[in-house]
Amino acid sequence: MNPQTDNVFYATNAFTGEALPLAFPVHTEVEVNQAATAAAKVARDFRRLNNSKRASLLRTIASELEARSDDIIARAHLETALPEVRLTGEIARTANQLRLFADVVNSGSYHQAILDTPNPTRAPLPKPDIRRQQIALGPVAVFGASNFPLAFSAAGGDTASALAAGCPVIVKGHTAHPGTSQIVAECIEQALKQEQLPQAIFTLLQGNQRALGQALVSHPEIKAVGFTGSVGGGRALFNLAHERPEPIPFYGELGAINPTFIFPSAMRAKADLADQFVASMTMGCGQFCTKPGVVFALNTPETQAFIETAQSLIRQQSPSTLLTPGIRDSYQSQVVSRGSDDGIDVTFSQAESPCVASALFVTSSENWRKHPAWEEEIFGPQSLIVVCENVADMLSLSEMLAGSLTATIHATEEDYPQVSQLIPRLEEIAGRLVFNGWPTGVEVGYAMVHGGPYPASTHSASTSVGAEAIHRWLRPVAYQALPESLLPDSLKAENPLEIARAVDGKAAHS
Amino acid sequence: MNPQTDNVFYATNAFTGEALPLAFPVHTEVEVNQAATAAAKVARDFRRLNNSKRASLLRTIASELEARSDDIIARAHLETALPEVRLTGEIARTANQLRLFADVVNSGSYHQAILDTPNPTRAPLPKPDIRRQQIALGPVAVFGASNFPLAFSAAGGDTASALAAGCPVIVKGHTAHPGTSQIVAECIEQALKQEQLPQAIFTLLQGNQRALGQALVSHPEIKAVGFTGSVGGGRALFNLAHERPEPIPFYGELGAINPTFIFPSAMRAKADLADQFVASMTMGCGQFCTKPGVVFALNTPETQAFIETAQSLIRQQSPSTLLTPGIRDSYQSQVVSRGSDDGIDVTFSQAESPCVASALFVTSSENWRKHPAWEEEIFGPQSLIVVCENVADMLSLSEMLAGSLTATIHATEEDYPQVSQLIPRLEEIAGRLVFNGWPTGVEVGYAMVHGGPYPASTHSASTSVGAEAIHRWLRPVAYQALPESLLPDSLKAENPLEIARAVDGKAAHS
Repeated sequence: MNPQTDNVFYATNAFTGEALPLAFPVHTEVEVNQAATAAAKVARDFRRLNNSKRASLLRTIASELEARSDDIIARAHLETALPEVRLTGEIARTANQLRLFADVVNSGSYHQAILDTPNPTRAPLPKPDIRRQQIALGPVAVFGASNFPLAFSAAGGDTASALAAGCPVIVKGHTAHPGTSQIVAECIEQALKQEQLPQAIFTLLQGNQRALGQALVSHPEIKAVGFTGSVGGGRALFNLAHERPEPIPFYGELGAINPTFIFPSAMRAKADLADQFVASMTMGCGQFCTKPGVVFALNTPETQAFIETAQSLIRQQSPSTLLTPGIRDSYQSQVVSRGSDDGIDVTFSQAESPCVASALFVTSSENWRKHPAWEEEIFGPQSLIVVCENVADMLSLSEMLAGSLTATIHATEEDYPQVSQLIPRLEEIAGRLVFNGWPTGVEVGYAMVHGGPYPASTHSASTSVGAEAIHRWLRPVAYQALPESLLPDSLKAENPLEIARAVDGKAAHS
Repeated sequence: MNPQTDNVFYATNAFTGEALPLAFPVHTEVEVNQAATAAAKVARDFRRLNNSKRASLLRTIASELEARSDDIIARAHLETALPEVRLTGEIARTANQLRLFADVVNSGSYHQAILDTPNPTRAPLPKPDIRRQQIALGPVAVFGASNFPLAFSAAGGDTASALAAGCPVIVKGHTAHPGTSQIVAECIEQALKQEQLPQAIFTLLQGNQRALGQALVSHPEIKAVGFTGSVGGGRALFNLAHERPEPIPFYGELGAINPTFIFPSAMRAKADLADQFVASMTMGCGQFCTKPGVVFALNTPETQAFIETAQSLIRQQSPSTLLTPGIRDSYQSQVVSRGSDDGIDVTFSQAESPCVASALFVTSSENWRKHPAWEEEIFGPQSLIVVCENVADMLSLSEMLAGSLTATIHATEEDYPQVSQLIPRLEEIAGRLVFNGWPTGVEVGYAMVHGGPYPASTHSASTSVGAEAIHRWLRPVAYQALPESLLPDSLKAENPLEIARAVDGKAAHS
């Protein structure tokens, strides 16, 4: 039945579980070495390529993706079971993301140019001329995510920001959508050709063996890693990256329960809160990394009504087809196991295998405290409501939470005094605070932070979405007393790139 | 003779090797836990303290250090054998560094505030209001370095930048100068008292057992580590920091050979190059992290003259008293071992134990290629000159070098075409490029980069000296649709802190 061999593998139809046409090579250490060596050879020229040419490459990739959107959507739909309208939106998002990074490169702000003017007469020692800019790290490995086959995969945010920084990229394609990755890789290859740039700037490696990713993270020419996935797999690769003779940064987004706090004033004021909540938790079949996985609310009649409405909405949910059989099996067993724990109530929708039911758990703060395992993310259409005794109880629970991508607050003005006590704690555990909204939907802008304390991110000072994501692939270099003709353009006195710079600690522009 | 017990330890007189008066407690896991728990309790208030109050604390610490400079210098001189004039300069440097970070905090630039304005009518989805700032990570552990008992120790750059960021600091004092660390800690304690801030914001822990540092790096309340020291010790703590259930950033400066490239034009033009070189390599008895540890030059008559002058200067060097008996023994055995390798020539100065001789090694590029171990840093007054066949040979050697804090070039205009081929490589291996100067002497300014690829730094995107060092202790948080009254001051519409901010991708200052 299954045509899998050691040399090739096949994608799985997410609806039927059957193999899809097209064999993909199982790449090994040999191909990793070829790709990394080739990437290292072109890395210096690519990082020194002028900004407008790198921006042009990103825009051309965006156009190529749009040109092949029909092919991409058709294949991605079969591989992921995501609806066509969602995939259409995701292509637009991915193309816009590439164009945002083109703007970032063109602005030159990523150089973070800082100039300290010399003072030869300073006592006791003269002050030297020191100028600093950021440069690309070198070849980068990117691991595609299963849940966003475009925006967080072969040409997703990690690839776009790394190419923008000037780093060649080697993508380890996700086994859940190899055909989608291949078409996307063809778009990037075509763009490189059109821009007359070497193909070694981008390589897609495919395979269904763990050794491939391990070889990639361990290769001496790889200088940083971008990863979106599970805590288990991500932590193993994180460990590898740090055990290398030369450790490298590993930017991993591993998991989040995205706590939501609903204050009594919001429960009273907002009639459609339960609808909004269920829509957010079931969006993309609950396979968003920003899914609200736990809701804290007070024990009031309005909260009881909120729970009942949410339960009734859950019962009416259509069955979900999850991304892969593995994700489905994992979801099923975790939901069944949690449902059989003490002190937890669960409501399911109707579903027949291979589809899965949505699930809503309800418990008390007392029981939540007894079950630290409930804080573990379950990937799929489920969430948990924790009924707290009072605001102090809710605040005290917040102090026990681990890192998350987001933390959400619902409240109206009368609760602001209590909310202002909660915010400082939420800053400490989340990359993004959301007010009177829902965490699903991650805006790709300048101010976005998609990260947060571990396990949300292995590198809480970084973001994997938004303009600042480019800084993951850069490091600073200072130039002391270099003559004008030898300085990089970003630091020359006349500021030929016309970029924002800081001079002697003050912002300056050209 | 030696009054060491399990509960106390004594400093060593660096000149005589005898124990100095004053017993210091050997702190253990118990004190680590007390200090970290207390630091965590005050962390939230300290990070939210307003900028001017944190700046004031830093200035008060600077004044306290200056007020006790006589005590500090007297004790540090005995503990480190560093001359009083050097220690006087180092107190000034340390105080200036604290004041620079006071300016950085006051300017508010460290918040890196970014605002994305909303667009409720954008299709297909409204654009949310997102604002982002940086906040402190929480309690930080700092490991003092032996070679700068003030500027890189208890109140050094790591402590100053972490306090500036709003992180409580726990210092593991270096065993080479416990008395100096204790006086410095008293200055900080006095400053906290004067500023009416809790003592738990700063704790000095002392001890001569490895377990102390390990317990500190492993403590769950510690959120980041700053370290300056050896590759061996640093890498072991780096590993610990990444093996924790919640891994934390480890900012370690571990070692560098600081290659220097002298082009033929400079050899011809600069008569005093050998004097400058020997002065730089023997500065602070060769115990600077930026000591030029290897010089590459072409095989010309001028290079031969340079070598002969340098050798003759080395022979005339006064004997060196190194920081500790351990450093002395390690230097002696490494220098003797290298001197007995094949294909290397060595010139020594005169010295009698416990002092050490300066040493200058000379070899050919051919022999350098055969001895990768020669690239390992030897801490102390020695360096190595590598005679290359031609510029191509020199460029090819540069491609083999590991990461370093600095890379230096000497050249006049006629060699610029060749220099411009070397610079792109040096950018890849060094944090700072120095032109027609020497790497010793690290300016504490806005543009400084004191870091570089491993092993110069375990985190090549960071610097441990200069204003940018504050970013090691910060992480970004985004706020989506928060009402004005709940936003932090750095992000409020009216910009009450009057800080530099970026709005919709453009720099703005309102």
